[in-house]
Amino acid sequence: MLEDLKQRVFEANLQLVKYDLVVLTWGNVSAIDRERGLVVIKPSGVPYSTMKAEDMVVLDLDGNKVEGDLNPSSDTPTHLELYRNFPSVGGIVHTHSSWACSWAQAGRDIPAYGTTHADFANGCVPCARGLTEDEVNGEYELNTGKVIVEEFIKREISPDECPAVLVHRHGPFTWGKDEFKAVENALILEEVAKMATRTEQIASMDKNSDIGIEQYLLDKHYQRKHGKNAYYGQNK
Amino acid sequence: MLEDLKQRVFEANLQLVKYDLVVLTWGNVSAIDRERGLVVIKPSGVPYSTMKAEDMVVLDLDGNKVEGDLNPSSDTPTHLELYRNFPSVGGIVHTHSSWACSWAQAGRDIPAYGTTHADFANGCVPCARGLTEDEVNGEYELNTGKVIVEEFIKREISPDECPAVLVHRHGPFTWGKDEFKAVENALILEEVAKMATRTEQIASMDKNSDIGIEQYLLDKHYQRKHGKNAYYGQNK
Amino acid sequence: MLEDLKQRVFEANLQLVKYDLVVLTWGNVSAIDRERGLVVIKPSGVPYSTMKAEDMVVLDLDGNKVEGDLNPSSDTPTHLELYRNFPSVGGIVHTHSSWACSWAQAGRDIPAYGTTHADFANGCVPCARGLTEDEVNGEYELNTGKVIVEEFIKREISPDECPAVLVHRHGPFTWGKDEFKAVENALILEEVAKMATRTEQIASMDKNSDIGIEQYLLDKHYQRKHGKNAYYGQNK
Amino acid sequence: MLEDLKQRVFEANLQLVKYDLVVLTWGNVSAIDRERGLVVIKPSGVPYSTMKAEDMVVLDLDGNKVEGDLNPSSDTPTHLELYRNFPSVGGIVHTHSSWACSWAQAGRDIPAYGTTHADFANGCVPCARGLTEDEVNGEYELNTGKVIVEEFIKREISPDECPAVLVHRHGPFTWGKDEFKAVENALILEEVAKMATRTEQIASMDKNSDIGIEQYLLDKHYQRKHGKNAYYGQNK
Repeated sequence: MLEDLKQRVFEANLQLVKYDLVVLTWGNVSAIDRERGLVVIKPSGVPYSTMKAEDMVVLDLDGNKVEGDLNPSSDTPTHLELYRNFPSVGGIVHTHSSWACSWAQAGRDIPAYGTTHADFANGCVPCARGLTEDEVNGEYELNTGKVIVEEFIKREISPDECPAVLVHRHGPFTWGKDEFKAVENALILEEVAKMATRTEQIASMDKNSDIGIEQYLLDKHYQRKHGKNAYYGQNK
Repeated sequence: MLEDLKQRVFEANLQLVKYDLVVLTWGNVSAIDRERGLVVIKPSGVPYSTMKAEDMVVLDLDGNKVEGDLNPSSDTPTHLELYRNFPSVGGIVHTHSSWACSWAQAGRDIPAYGTTHADFANGCVPCARGLTEDEVNGEYELNTGKVIVEEFIKREISPDECPAVLVHRHGPFTWGKDEFKAVENALILEEVAKMATRTEQIASMDKNSDIGIEQYLLDKHYQRKHGKNAYYGQNK
Repeated sequence: MLEDLKQRVFEANLQLVKYDLVVLTWGNVSAIDRERGLVVIKPSGVPYSTMKAEDMVVLDLDGNKVEGDLNPSSDTPTHLELYRNFPSVGGIVHTHSSWACSWAQAGRDIPAYGTTHADFANGCVPCARGLTEDEVNGEYELNTGKVIVEEFIKREISPDECPAVLVHRHGPFTWGKDEFKAVENALILEEVAKMATRTEQIASMDKNSDIGIEQYLLDKHYQRKHGKNAYYGQNK
Repeated sequence: MLEDLKQRVFEANLQLVKYDLVVLTWGNVSAIDRERGLVVIKPSGVPYSTMKAEDMVVLDLDGNKVEGDLNPSSDTPTHLELYRNFPSVGGIVHTHSSWACSWAQAGRDIPAYGTTHADFANGCVPCARGLTEDEVNGEYELNTGKVIVEEFIKREISPDECPAVLVHRHGPFTWGKDEFKAVENALILEEVAKMATRTEQIASMDKNSDIGIEQYLLDKHYQRKHGKNAYYGQNK
């Protein structure tokens, strides 16, 4: 079942390798068929070089395996929690990409320092609060998803405005209308995280340098690409 | 029309990918046919992997589309403003290359720290002033071009002496006698921006270290490559 | 003899090149046949591009050459000392990978800053004490191994819990149940060392930032991948 | 004439591209036939992608062109001065590799921080003094060579002990017994310069960290690879 979606999720997983966002078996991509309420996700710990489309695992939104011989990614409960709470999301990606993970390990939001960021997200990329000891020792992967959702609610950010989050001490999750857009957002997040680090380094060498994009420039770039009068790209 | 120039602009756009200066659909290259007063530019938001030479868009210098089915790059008004004001320029490139963007986001000129820089530009690479809120909310991309031109006039820099600028909080534009030279300059700028960052880092670790190229050495390198008695390369 | 193991050690050595962990003739991989008490190791100073499986050298655990026309890696006595003292180890890797070497040159343990690290090691990656002048001028490579073993004993770390060490002023050794796992650990160590550097850099730019993974999160990640109730990957 | 040496110098130049040490037309490799007193060098400003072995230029040690249709590299007088003064040198390389150039731009020697460095050079890699205004405005490229030679004499370093130098505000020259060894040394220098930068960064984050290789460890590594009782590699 869902052979087409399995093929797409498989290809999206391979894009993580192509874009240098993962090494070894790290990272995972999933997608949801909203009509059927079924999620397709990468199996756990399988090398990208030998993985096949039919290895993708199908689950319902409660985490019951519907099809597949392999264990789903250990991060599956996090994906499912995001699908349950972010109804516009069609695909989700988790990586341990180096720059985004380094911000997560430092426990910092990635500030909006320029238009590359503003083309991507309507404000900083939040680093969610750390999980408590009880949350870690309980349903850890589910609680990871809950903490992400909590962070977006608390900060009043819509997942449509910011397609990425940093899990504290861990790394990024990104999403999009489908699995390929979610991978694209993982790539952009890594570029943005790298540039933010370098921006701070360069600014720190000149005491006259100030950083942080002006609100009106952030709005302009975000809206020209994502707003209702967006004029970037081709008419769809 | 202009099939030859479209092919060249198409190939120059692909060089941005080859030189790792762009990801996804970022970046754009244009070129001008000065006799006819026509500009050829990359379409907006089209993936490099599926782009064709015939997708290039032809416009006149007022921005009227003369040929092409697709929307031109959203940065087109910036390119046109530069062509109108910098008459020796034959090709223009815009990228979000990481090191140059990071200097732009920090709002800093790239200082001339060594001969790699001096082979490229006759002084620092300027970061133009930020656009005002009115300029951003008005004809944003046109105003971006105007601010670049203003910066070169104010600082009394000729675009022939410095083939690059940083747009504040945004990223680099580079140019040259044709589209391939403009791409080459985008690549050199990225190298120069990277080395400048590292030079400051290395110097900051030793309080006896001083940085900044001596004026006579800057002059020597710039002139041996670009002056009227240049002796770098082959006789043309 | 041991043609199969030679082939595997040969392939594992080539993986060092593929993973960008070595340049030129740097680095070496070995493996042990515990039943026969024989070690297979890369020859010294042979380019990866011309190396063949039959060039691998076979030695006993006392360092006597059993088969092979070439000199074994000059680091062989270090490998042998580790095999003699770490009985669960099946393969060993030494590289001069840039990030791990830089931590070794700085003489610092790599702290556990996030879950990428916790998936790999149950605590910091130790930098062993420097060798004394006598140890360097004596049986240098053997003493290098002895200092590593001493460090693990002194800190009460099992080599199963932490598959890597930094040799002071020198670089990393990693190990695993076989030669491919040891290479994988060399790759992960390099990723972890890179992220740790970036984490410190990013944290240093914000005085509210604190770093260092919480003990319960470290335990959770280490145990879910390596503990007796591990649930990462597929059932074996 | 010297077709074999031209072919080798041509191939050595292409290795600069393969090892990511140059972009565009940057960098140059030369070699000397000591018996005939003739030097073969890359032509100036020719792209690596179209360069042919027969484009290599042959000169005598006074700089008179003996064969070749193209202008030799503009750095030729520097190469010749080194060949005249360093009689054991058979090949010379100049690049603008990023890390080594950044140390040159900062005007700093690269300190010996670890065994990767000690395997390469018997002490720091010197940054030569800057040229005076008169030296720059006179025979600039020749004077660059003179300043390098002066630095080695003043510091009592043999070019056999340290196969590399940084030209102030400019970049590295490396050498070796032949052109391929000189390229190899250019690659190692870049690795060493990168690691030295990272070592200082990592050490700066921990006030208990001290850096600088111990003299006895430097001696040990340098001698085991280059000394008269060297035991690295295969018997020659």
